[in-house]
Amino acid sequence: MGQVRIGICAPSTPLYREEAEQLITLTSQSHPDAELVFHDQCFAIEGHFAGKDDLRCSAFLSLANDPSIDAIWFARGGYGAARIADAILEKLEPAAHDKSYMGYSDGGNLLGALYKAGIGTQAHGPMPVDMRREGGMAAVNRGLDWLVSKDRTALEPHVEPGQKYAAFNLMTLAMMVGTPLLPDLEGHVLMIEEIAEYLYAFDRALFNVTTHLADKGLAGIRLGRVSEVPENNRPFGEEAEEIVQRLCDRYAIPYLGSADIGHDVDNKVVPFGTLPD
Amino acid sequence: MGQVRIGICAPSTPLYREEAEQLITLTSQSHPDAELVFHDQCFAIEGHFAGKDDLRCSAFLSLANDPSIDAIWFARGGYGAARIADAILEKLEPAAHDKSYMGYSDGGNLLGALYKAGIGTQAHGPMPVDMRREGGMAAVNRGLDWLVSKDRTALEPHVEPGQKYAAFNLMTLAMMVGTPLLPDLEGHVLMIEEIAEYLYAFDRALFNVTTHLADKGLAGIRLGRVSEVPENNRPFGEEAEEIVQRLCDRYAIPYLGSADIGHDVDNKVVPFGTLPD
Repeated sequence: MGQVRIGICAPSTPLYREEAEQLITLTSQSHPDAELVFHDQCFAIEGHFAGKDDLRCSAFLSLANDPSIDAIWFARGGYGAARIADAILEKLEPAAHDKSYMGYSDGGNLLGALYKAGIGTQAHGPMPVDMRREGGMAAVNRGLDWLVSKDRTALEPHVEPGQKYAAFNLMTLAMMVGTPLLPDLEGHVLMIEEIAEYLYAFDRALFNVTTHLADKGLAGIRLGRVSEVPENNRPFGEEAEEIVQRLCDRYAIPYLGSADIGHDVDNKVVPFGTLPD
Repeated sequence: MGQVRIGICAPSTPLYREEAEQLITLTSQSHPDAELVFHDQCFAIEGHFAGKDDLRCSAFLSLANDPSIDAIWFARGGYGAARIADAILEKLEPAAHDKSYMGYSDGGNLLGALYKAGIGTQAHGPMPVDMRREGGMAAVNRGLDWLVSKDRTALEPHVEPGQKYAAFNLMTLAMMVGTPLLPDLEGHVLMIEEIAEYLYAFDRALFNVTTHLADKGLAGIRLGRVSEVPENNRPFGEEAEEIVQRLCDRYAIPYLGSADIGHDVDNKVVPFGTLPD
């Protein structure tokens, strides 16, 4: 395998330019067979977003439609990917089909839409922004291991050949429910994770998701980490895993246990669909 | 018109018993033709909820199926109504059809489900818990004016005879999208309001709702108050009304202007469907 060119754009919120420069330097040492191609759009700022919708969309398209780029890596989550997903899908060209796409959190909107459209391969996994975490380069390097060489040590440990998977941030997934962004999850093990939501909001979002998916033939649900839960004025009365178990029971969805994913440095890679041979 | 008996239960979170006693006293003075019947379940506490799902469900049913009760008033929002809505619908008896139902916030789950099922009449309006607000008895009395005598001075001022309406807290509505709780809103003016959500989360929820409703024939959207918006690390870049206007433009949904609803003492009553003659 020659040099792997990884195009990085920001469908949601921006990075700092110094972060990109630092990551290019670190990657040249850790993954000399990888070339990081940061689109300038990663550093654009427009209110909450890394540039206006049109700019975020065109940056994604310019990388995804470039035959010299092998993979598209989402710089960071936040919010914004859903707003450009349909415009992106309309303008993707054949070169976009040969690529792998990776990100998580808000990026799940694009992973789901691309998976549904059958464009490229998608993985829920670390992003460049994870370098900000303490020990975060472990996550970034794991992401690179997957993007560069499909290194299976990067995988979430429950991922097995032949089984279909999908992974999402729960709130992101709940906001895809009822829209064309949500792919068909029949036969899939669904892994979910959450950050910075009250447990009542976690329950509310999972109620929405499981009610919608109840009759859609899920193979089961695995629960990743639910972190930075704010304290409410009254304890909710259940832990996150009890919430998942109860809702799985309610809708006869198999609850399969934990998933090694989350908004943290231990976040493992979950390819969408079945593992490539 | 004789005495109007208003049954109060808590499908979501609890009240304090002293609040009920105080409200009974105040109502006997302001609305001598009303009798408030607080179900004991209003004061039950089970973690986040006013009692377990079974208790909240059975309390609702005992009041709704009681022919001597004229109206059901939801004590308070929070979270929990969605979890009992389908069990309630399964067991409502003919007496439930002759009643009016009122609440807002999380109570929207039940308003929507009852409206969809054609059971009784539903109104988005003040709840007993509004007495906690400064000047909150103005809201509570407005709610009573509607429940007791269908007093049209209680109505949201844009409500006109012959036009269909529905009103929801936006996050509550987003979590109904893609589930059987969501009624058909074709031909309706939809009024929304929000509290304590970041503007990016407001945009995200409205993106979900408008994407889902884009082809469902809405007559238009009106925006109520968006209050207690937390400060984010970066300004979002648009105000709430600009968000609504942009998403209405995106999906060719008429944006009709403001609505006089919100999590506040000025919250007006929005009956679901068309006004009764």
